[in-house]
Amino acid sequence: MAALPDTAAQRAEFYQRISEHHMTPLWEVLGALVPPRPSSPALPALWRYNNLRPHVLDAGHLITAEEAERRVLVLENPGLRGQSCITQSLYAGLQLILPGEVAPAHRHTQSALRLVMEGQGAYTAVDGERTRMQRGDFILTPAWTWHDHGNEGKEPVVWLDGLDIPLVRSFDAGFSEKSGITTQIPERPEGDALARYGSNLLPVDYAPTAADPARVFVYPFEKTCEAMRQIARTTPDPHLGHKLRFVNPATGASPLPTMGACVQRLPAGFETRPVRATDGTVVLCLEGHGHVSVGNQDWAFGENDVFVVPSWHALSLHARSDTLLFSFSDRPVQQTLGLLREERL
Amino acid sequence: MAALPDTAAQRAEFYQRISEHHMTPLWEVLGALVPPRPSSPALPALWRYNNLRPHVLDAGHLITAEEAERRVLVLENPGLRGQSCITQSLYAGLQLILPGEVAPAHRHTQSALRLVMEGQGAYTAVDGERTRMQRGDFILTPAWTWHDHGNEGKEPVVWLDGLDIPLVRSFDAGFSEKSGITTQIPERPEGDALARYGSNLLPVDYAPTAADPARVFVYPFEKTCEAMRQIARTTPDPHLGHKLRFVNPATGASPLPTMGACVQRLPAGFETRPVRATDGTVVLCLEGHGHVSVGNQDWAFGENDVFVVPSWHALSLHARSDTLLFSFSDRPVQQTLGLLREERL
Amino acid sequence: MAALPDTAAQRAEFYQRISEHHMTPLWEVLGALVPPRPSSPALPALWRYNNLRPHVLDAGHLITAEEAERRVLVLENPGLRGQSCITQSLYAGLQLILPGEVAPAHRHTQSALRLVMEGQGAYTAVDGERTRMQRGDFILTPAWTWHDHGNEGKEPVVWLDGLDIPLVRSFDAGFSEKSGITTQIPERPEGDALARYGSNLLPVDYAPTAADPARVFVYPFEKTCEAMRQIARTTPDPHLGHKLRFVNPATGASPLPTMGACVQRLPAGFETRPVRATDGTVVLCLEGHGHVSVGNQDWAFGENDVFVVPSWHALSLHARSDTLLFSFSDRPVQQTLGLLREERL
Amino acid sequence: MAALPDTAAQRAEFYQRISEHHMTPLWEVLGALVPPRPSSPALPALWRYNNLRPHVLDAGHLITAEEAERRVLVLENPGLRGQSCITQSLYAGLQLILPGEVAPAHRHTQSALRLVMEGQGAYTAVDGERTRMQRGDFILTPAWTWHDHGNEGKEPVVWLDGLDIPLVRSFDAGFSEKSGITTQIPERPEGDALARYGSNLLPVDYAPTAADPARVFVYPFEKTCEAMRQIARTTPDPHLGHKLRFVNPATGASPLPTMGACVQRLPAGFETRPVRATDGTVVLCLEGHGHVSVGNQDWAFGENDVFVVPSWHALSLHARSDTLLFSFSDRPVQQTLGLLREERL
Repeated sequence: MAALPDTAAQRAEFYQRISEHHMTPLWEVLGALVPPRPSSPALPALWRYNNLRPHVLDAGHLITAEEAERRVLVLENPGLRGQSCITQSLYAGLQLILPGEVAPAHRHTQSALRLVMEGQGAYTAVDGERTRMQRGDFILTPAWTWHDHGNEGKEPVVWLDGLDIPLVRSFDAGFSEKSGITTQIPERPEGDALARYGSNLLPVDYAPTAADPARVFVYPFEKTCEAMRQIARTTPDPHLGHKLRFVNPATGASPLPTMGACVQRLPAGFETRPVRATDGTVVLCLEGHGHVSVGNQDWAFGENDVFVVPSWHALSLHARSDTLLFSFSDRPVQQTLGLLREERL
Repeated sequence: MAALPDTAAQRAEFYQRISEHHMTPLWEVLGALVPPRPSSPALPALWRYNNLRPHVLDAGHLITAEEAERRVLVLENPGLRGQSCITQSLYAGLQLILPGEVAPAHRHTQSALRLVMEGQGAYTAVDGERTRMQRGDFILTPAWTWHDHGNEGKEPVVWLDGLDIPLVRSFDAGFSEKSGITTQIPERPEGDALARYGSNLLPVDYAPTAADPARVFVYPFEKTCEAMRQIARTTPDPHLGHKLRFVNPATGASPLPTMGACVQRLPAGFETRPVRATDGTVVLCLEGHGHVSVGNQDWAFGENDVFVVPSWHALSLHARSDTLLFSFSDRPVQQTLGLLREERL
Repeated sequence: MAALPDTAAQRAEFYQRISEHHMTPLWEVLGALVPPRPSSPALPALWRYNNLRPHVLDAGHLITAEEAERRVLVLENPGLRGQSCITQSLYAGLQLILPGEVAPAHRHTQSALRLVMEGQGAYTAVDGERTRMQRGDFILTPAWTWHDHGNEGKEPVVWLDGLDIPLVRSFDAGFSEKSGITTQIPERPEGDALARYGSNLLPVDYAPTAADPARVFVYPFEKTCEAMRQIARTTPDPHLGHKLRFVNPATGASPLPTMGACVQRLPAGFETRPVRATDGTVVLCLEGHGHVSVGNQDWAFGENDVFVVPSWHALSLHARSDTLLFSFSDRPVQQTLGLLREERL
Repeated sequence: MAALPDTAAQRAEFYQRISEHHMTPLWEVLGALVPPRPSSPALPALWRYNNLRPHVLDAGHLITAEEAERRVLVLENPGLRGQSCITQSLYAGLQLILPGEVAPAHRHTQSALRLVMEGQGAYTAVDGERTRMQRGDFILTPAWTWHDHGNEGKEPVVWLDGLDIPLVRSFDAGFSEKSGITTQIPERPEGDALARYGSNLLPVDYAPTAADPARVFVYPFEKTCEAMRQIARTTPDPHLGHKLRFVNPATGASPLPTMGACVQRLPAGFETRPVRATDGTVVLCLEGHGHVSVGNQDWAFGENDVFVVPSWHALSLHARSDTLLFSFSDRPVQQTLGLLREERL
């Protein structure tokens, strides 16, 4: 499309002229708009928890949880600085809550998930029910549910937050509201949702739609580990090891319509064959250590380290000890929209 | 529609004439075919386990499990004798398996559910995976899955069988096959399906359709009791007490497309308000005792007693002690077809 | 299972004894209850319209449409006499309405479909909207919709009725109600439902569930023929010719949850390869003539002839001229329940 | 959150320090990331066709359709210049194809819709089937379908293109491919898809999933108008007039998973009450003229004018003559994800 000099000048003049009418020529940008394959501006990156932890704790001296509303250090993708996102559609951060602190009740149309990284004694309350947060617990605060957090223990508690903030922003569909009360009064005993909606049983009249988030809002680490131990007795998949996805047991769909989460176990010494997919994925190491390669990058990783695999970057994992990984991405959206592609290489 | 004498004769002659062409007049039977409300030929009935148990054990002397293929005493609805059914669409029976016996592997398009009533040491195997049967366990052998049973313990084991035999017959859609091997060799460790499909997790690539039966084929009594204890701390529903339905956690639908099952807890002294529904229902008392009224009938009931509530008969329950009931019916079919009606009186 | 004499006597005595408790031994009937393949009591049959028509018209002299409520001659399957059904789950009949007559408004939980066979000038009204009935029109009166018919023309009008009466009976879920008014006053102009729900458009807020019947309640023959003419230009399928199923365009499912209907075109001379399926099917010849083989039976057929293909009977068709067939069965139910099997031989 | 001077300095230093680790403090941006209500950077805008048309035709002198691959002038939202989008998730443009020209075959994971604005004689081919483009036709080229265009007539043809380019970009899920052949050879006669998938009939074995785009890829203007004329006889909705959404008649869902489209009719003189919704919407006037108010902006509009209503901006319309509007937005995605909010004021 290298135009002759005259043509080039004519075109430039034309582009100028139509710009006043808020128009631009597609042909100058078509290649970038409709690329042959994904070329995400996001970059592979790994955050080593040992490096981050001191800063996370420092944040505890600079601002209170209540003043901050949420005291979180956002993990910004190096290729997307200033945009508060870890992939183009997702946000991740490390939240700290100190003994005696509360993070006041609010709600928003953004969905959130949490994975508890360290510390005992904190709780999350969702629409009138509390759950005590244990290391490894996977906890949801679905869109537009009131939620608050508090630490009734004696040590700092840190967790990974995952939200669909960039995704909701790209639809211009964000609403939020602060509650008049800082801390919700429990309306149901702890464990009620898990019994009622997460025990392979459901209330007789409960009829959720496909888009409804899970009512069970905690997936206790203990139960997850028990399941993984159980299936560890079978042969691991060459690309995935043993990998299960968290589900809303009232629909079989992802617990949140915008974000899917998985747990993956690799026995010591296991090396996965490379996989690439269009859903940029955030991974947290729950247990064990090993080596990860993402596209052209590679790193050693250990407990509580977080790394991001941008869209269409090949991922391989090598476990040096029995390793348990938690991950989340926008996969359920891409599946719903028919956009997901995956290659097992 | 009382026709004049002449007309009556003419009509009779006409009916005769068209009968040769395999035709009959609708107007003579319209009221019966399209009734104002359900008037089931099925009758309310209760089977007292104390009365049945000696006969069930006697059957053990008359025929072996293997000779019988399945040694079951069918519970026949008193209004439907000779039809091997407990409601118009469902079958129920008590199956006995003695120590050392096996019930050989077969499969059929009829779906089956089991509720273990007494005895230790038996197992059910479904498509290559075994589960040891404990009292109260709810076990599935979905349509067209290979299944066999055996008793490796020291005492007789008895369970309630529920099948959709009449329903499948009404669609003329029954197929069955005997296996060449009596007892399936386990292909996966016990507990695998429960871990993989019944722990609020699912294999990443598993995508069942709405009609697929559950892959988790055992709902252990221990887990069910734990959930019921948990929700027992909340206020019971005036019509239902605490009632949950078993679900396929991969879809949120009934574990079997043709039969739904529930567990219901009533605290000591609780009396339910009457409910009537179009799904004829079979109830088994797992724990406790009380009094039940079905239409114009009423009975005391205790552990392991079974009763049937025909379509559109009002049901009330009065628990004399903390009571746990298991029940099953064709409700998922009626819901799918838009036929279910329910009235809470 | 031929028991020794002693055993036989013992068993007989046992059966007697348990019979008092409403129990019977499964092992004596297992083979019949769980057959290796469907062995429907329904028989193949063909009703030749030329033979039936005089009787249908005679019925017009014996009883009025209003007195009969619905003046229908039921087509009874020769293997199921006295049961008012054409297959185990379906009912079919020929309805006659004479000039000036009305069939008064009523509703029932049974779903009905109609296929207009002859005559001009009749209408069907469904929940406040009328449609004029033209030959070949496929018309629905879904469960629990008020419906009435009338003939404002100058000639008798005859149509085929298909209902799910036996199916609803097998679930004991039948309700019905007569309207206080004989003839509904139209609330919407004719054609409204077809425009609003049947033009590849839908009301912006309309969100039906999977089980909802179609709101478009008429599939005009003219439009059906146009579509069939269009696809007749492509290669016919060796087993099916050109065959399409009627759908609820708001869901893609069958227009009625309990009955599916198809239209099938065979070019002159075309012979289909045999097909068998578990859904017993009623077929009406709309246009053309040919030869049909069902299991071991075969017949010539022509316009307005009706035949029934019981479950698992192989069907082959040979068209002597361009032939158009309408058919209906319980296929959507069997699909939903996972019971459908089909073999293209 | 105005920190004391010391604190401010400490925080600044802290922010600097953690920035090296690709972290930023959430509390400085929380309000912007999780706003109380949508505050889209997109602005209301109207493009008057009379102003644009000369430029569109001028583009025909600057570049050929084949050289451009697609000769389109993108309508850029004034608030999102340089991003080739009309809302944050959608793209729109005017495409010109001159007599004798072709736009060569390609495919991409972006979905596209077309609304023909002027000119006779062009065609669109989708996966081996052509449709001749008539003014007002709504045409789809779903994700990953081969498509090409050509003009076999005697006049320029212009249409509105709508694509989900920004949405697919935000998921980093774009793939594209150019075909070796410029112009697809038709494999099926024109009209085949409309007959087979768009006539309230479907192929007997066709079982699409919820995310599948429509196989019927043209919604002829003539049929749309006929439906709108039909429903124009009923009372218009005070907020919407007469408004229907285009559907995939094989699922009832939007024809494309990422974009929904509607047709809306307002009788002369009709004034809609204001509505606001979270789906930013592009509107094209097909017939008539009137006055539109979007947030604080208002304009007169006439035939072929295009305007955009950003998220959560109130829209009111006043028709000066009988008016027909086409519109599209990302509504199906927002519904699927549970993000859609709408207020009828």
